[in-house]
Amino acid sequence: MTDYQTFRGFVATDIKTSTTPGGVGTASFRLGSTARRFDRATSTWVDSHTNWFNVQGYRQLAGNMACSIKKGQCVIVVGRLKLRSWEKDGRVYHSAEIDADSVGHDLKRGSANYIRTSDTGL
Amino acid sequence: MTDYQTFRGFVATDIKTSTTPGGVGTASFRLGSTARRFDRATSTWVDSHTNWFNVQGYRQLAGNMACSIKKGQCVIVVGRLKLRSWEKDGRVYHSAEIDADSVGHDLKRGSANYIRTSDTGL
Amino acid sequence: MTDYQTFRGFVATDIKTSTTPGGVGTASFRLGSTARRFDRATSTWVDSHTNWFNVQGYRQLAGNMACSIKKGQCVIVVGRLKLRSWEKDGRVYHSAEIDADSVGHDLKRGSANYIRTSDTGL
Amino acid sequence: MTDYQTFRGFVATDIKTSTTPGGVGTASFRLGSTARRFDRATSTWVDSHTNWFNVQGYRQLAGNMACSIKKGQCVIVVGRLKLRSWEKDGRVYHSAEIDADSVGHDLKRGSANYIRTSDTGL
Repeated sequence: MTDYQTFRGFVATDIKTSTTPGGVGTASFRLGSTARRFDRATSTWVDSHTNWFNVQGYRQLAGNMACSIKKGQCVIVVGRLKLRSWEKDGRVYHSAEIDADSVGHDLKRGSANYIRTSDTGL
Repeated sequence: MTDYQTFRGFVATDIKTSTTPGGVGTASFRLGSTARRFDRATSTWVDSHTNWFNVQGYRQLAGNMACSIKKGQCVIVVGRLKLRSWEKDGRVYHSAEIDADSVGHDLKRGSANYIRTSDTGL
Repeated sequence: MTDYQTFRGFVATDIKTSTTPGGVGTASFRLGSTARRFDRATSTWVDSHTNWFNVQGYRQLAGNMACSIKKGQCVIVVGRLKLRSWEKDGRVYHSAEIDADSVGHDLKRGSANYIRTSDTGL
Repeated sequence: MTDYQTFRGFVATDIKTSTTPGGVGTASFRLGSTARRFDRATSTWVDSHTNWFNVQGYRQLAGNMACSIKKGQCVIVVGRLKLRSWEKDGRVYHSAEIDADSVGHDLKRGSANYIRTSDTGL
């Protein structure tokens, strides 16, 4: 089963927005998520490998992402991972996408002025 | 092992801030996290049981929480769950705390103007 | 929202099994999940706080839990956390339950001979 | 940050084992993890997209994986996702690896006879 997972990292590109032919708003950005490992030699945490994802939001989340997220910010993303590969003209292409259900700025790295736009649900 | 876990919900109280005797800033609020279940009779998702947690942040996260989080907002919390019980005067007390590592406003429910306050790390 | 979460720990009690009035099989055990923290003084990981949960399984999972899980084993539990409190005779009671969706023995600590009993789904 | 994440799915290949030049035992298998989505038309859960991962275990986990895991079984994997791409002879290659910290058979789909091999830690 593919459950919701949480990814933390930084926004590596500007936000791209669009509307599907069916009229659903979408927003996306590139997320870099860097592993940290404890280095015993120096007794400090150091950066390790970075995973790259394309984060996709839809509907109301897409609108709020478009108004709120900027390149360089630190974010938390909750969503479903979707790894895909396909062939075209004899070459194999790959993508790592997160179908986002929630996105938020990480207050560990900054402060935010937030205005609730939805009254439905918690 | 107790790993990081993700909790989504709404802020049920005002933020409380403090400083430990050792000089570490802290901030806390009450989080309500409501389960959703699919109701086959009506073919809709309906609210189910609500879990209540005390969310605790420290250091820089505490400062940014204090400046950013308000009662009623929807948030994502990544941290470690800590369930405790103790006895006092013949009564047993319990607490469910989340030792938060990251907190963010959920853009599924609102928009945010975020300013990064830290340059260290991603 | 209350999403699935993962808990790792050890089985602290014998398995208890039952059948609901509606005919659904259930199995439960007590799970101890101990946090680990890195101690800089000794440069080793040491045990920290232990959370205690009541893990509940239903239907086919309950049957397989009953046949497979023994006190003292190390397990992985994926499920939904349910914190509850109620009053009775002037006292407040609390419970921390995990409504389990999957349970497995942790091969980090032992080996297992597994026989698949279900062909439906993956 | 790249935290531990949980993946559930089925073992799609036989286990491959090896020892690194440094003497560390390793075991690996291919994991297929299929998303489920609720189909409103039929009011049932149906299979959706499948993600494919290479699951890698080390040391004691590797030994127990080698003795315990067989093709076709249903497992729970807790670990760190590592997406990589590299170029060779003008072509770009990709891999999606899970560096496993815990692996267990899913008792939702079968029963297991488990023997603990380690006394250290919980």
